[in-house]
Amino acid sequence: MMGKFIVVEGLEGAGKSSVINLIVDTLKRSGIECETTREPGGTPMAEAIRECVKHPWEEIVAEETELMLMYAARKQLLDNKILPALRSGKWVVGDRHDLSSQAYQGGGRGIDPNIMKMLRDITLQGFTPDLTIYLDVEPEAGLARARGRGELDRIELAGLDFFRRTRKKYCELAAMDESIITIDAMQEMTTVHHDVVEAVSRFMR
Amino acid sequence: MMGKFIVVEGLEGAGKSSVINLIVDTLKRSGIECETTREPGGTPMAEAIRECVKHPWEEIVAEETELMLMYAARKQLLDNKILPALRSGKWVVGDRHDLSSQAYQGGGRGIDPNIMKMLRDITLQGFTPDLTIYLDVEPEAGLARARGRGELDRIELAGLDFFRRTRKKYCELAAMDESIITIDAMQEMTTVHHDVVEAVSRFMR
Repeated sequence: MMGKFIVVEGLEGAGKSSVINLIVDTLKRSGIECETTREPGGTPMAEAIRECVKHPWEEIVAEETELMLMYAARKQLLDNKILPALRSGKWVVGDRHDLSSQAYQGGGRGIDPNIMKMLRDITLQGFTPDLTIYLDVEPEAGLARARGRGELDRIELAGLDFFRRTRKKYCELAAMDESIITIDAMQEMTTVHHDVVEAVSRFMR
Repeated sequence: MMGKFIVVEGLEGAGKSSVINLIVDTLKRSGIECETTREPGGTPMAEAIRECVKHPWEEIVAEETELMLMYAARKQLLDNKILPALRSGKWVVGDRHDLSSQAYQGGGRGIDPNIMKMLRDITLQGFTPDLTIYLDVEPEAGLARARGRGELDRIELAGLDFFRRTRKKYCELAAMDESIITIDAMQEMTTVHHDVVEAVSRFMR
């Protein structure tokens, strides 16, 4: 019996980390064994690739480079961590997955949808999460929270318009796919968490 | 006036390094200013990606991962080093370029030619070297020389059959493309070097 793959998505400062902890607790209380992952990263090689993506390089980083690195890391995580866990019956809760590339690189950077599709096909070969929780925040609010936590990385420094385009793409994709549940993360945290537990509980039934 | 891009290709132990030095000397004697590059690598970010490719990871490295990393590094090198040098009128002498991916990943690993083509199109957008010197050696001889220099890396440990398939693809591609000059690198080194100087001199005229 395969486990299920639940992904938490959203802009910087949307509150993904606390929602992931909450989902893990909810699953454990139902006796479900689970692992967590993050993207890019989650295996030794994928974490090294993450460093390449996140480092504040002085050279210009081509959009295509960033995208190929994201998919290279995703491939390692999928093959070496997500799929083995699911096959052993465990559930996996992921901090970001392919929807992030579609939103950030596809929406935010405006990369050609054909290029996006080719890399997705090469890497995922049709694999998709069973449930995605998309935490929707206004970019201003999310970035203010992220800034409060310390320095922003190269991608987080991309500017407000970039995050507006990213959010727009997130919302468009969520509206087209019923496995993506949008939760208004501008609400009080207790309300957000209530909505998350409800969505996960509904999915488990 | 754009500079020219000359690439030296071949299996491990084919003698690329000394041939590159020879080409640089030959160009300098003709008053041509030139830079050298290596792949994967050649910019700070591309060198970091090279480390990800070459490291002896304990996890399985997917063929698609290796390929996407190679092209990510190539994109950084092309945009940030090769093209700026050529545009400033300098010549560039490269230790490997796209032909290596076609031979090693396409031929050696047997990756789907459509995937190869998609990544090449994303990365190079039609850019090709002006001249490629392919140093043809028998894999046994090349690997023996490489082993004599010290440890072999993850790719060099792939086995003899892998290098036979790689060499076959190199030879096929060289036969189809008149910008690729094949030089028999099983000859005495002085003969090899004579052939290289002749090929480069012919190209300069």
